Amino acid sequence: MTQQKNKLQDMCPVGRALDIIGDRWCLLIIREAFDGVSRFSDFLKQLAIARNILTNRLQHLVAADIFTLQNAVEGGVYQAYILTAKGKDLFPVIVSLRQWGEHYQFEKNETYSQLVERHSTTPIKKIEIYSQQGVPLKPEDTIVKH
Amino acid sequence: MTQQKNKLQDMCPVGRALDIIGDRWCLLIIREAFDGVSRFSDFLKQLAIARNILTNRLQHLVAADIFTLQNAVEGGVYQAYILTAKGKDLFPVIVSLRQWGEHYQFEKNETYSQLVERHSTTPIKKIEIYSQQGVPLKPEDTIVKH
Repeated sequence: MTQQKNKLQDMCPVGRALDIIGDRWCLLIIREAFDGVSRFSDFLKQLAIARNILTNRLQHLVAADIFTLQNAVEGGVYQAYILTAKGKDLFPVIVSLRQWGEHYQFEKNETYSQLVERHSTTPIKKIEIYSQQGVPLKPEDTIVKH
Repeated sequence: MTQQKNKLQDMCPVGRALDIIGDRWCLLIIREAFDGVSRFSDFLKQLAIARNILTNRLQHLVAADIFTLQNAVEGGVYQAYILTAKGKDLFPVIVSLRQWGEHYQFEKNETYSQLVERHSTTPIKKIEIYSQQGVPLKPEDTIVKH
């Protein structure tokens, strides 16, 4: 795969990120982890994913330092997949997917799960892209510098 | 696929978003579009993607109303794939992937392409997640309400 890429492509952080997490299952597993899931059997149940695919993706995500394996608190009969700092930094990726999905992928009469602030239970703010000076930027206000 | 999902899963906007764009090629095509690419032949060249895969993904993205097909300005010998409003609203998804990639997927001595404000050419601000009141939120400050 890497051989096929040209030099400019390889310098792109979006492409490098997608090399690691550009897979629907990986992103769904990470979403579940943000929702508090940590056990293999719970990922299996929540995602209705095939056991061998889950095993493969979790191994990949541990190798990529997105999850770390820990003995679960209540005595160590099973292990827990815990998001590392690198994994937790994917929060904006998951939130931006969520907000786009909320807006475009539900009919008016459908309900959906909401991400809310834990204490106030008010929905979080819509992500905006800002300049260093705090000015909101549209895509056309930006350019990629190689 | 949909049949396998349980009800809670189906209510999740992250899952619904990934049903549409949870594919590495789709996201790379959308990234290229934000960078100004619009012609089939340019996507083909930029991404080093197989022609049949590109055709398939572009058809999918047009059907999903992420791209619209327009006659290109300079006379219509070819058509252009233009991001719709729905497609442009994926900007935070691409930017959040980029920022994570910048931080974690490059060695210290490697250079990468940067997303900058068009006029000042200063890098854009790091995405943060805020409450409605403007307080920055970590993942653990939030909860999913079903």
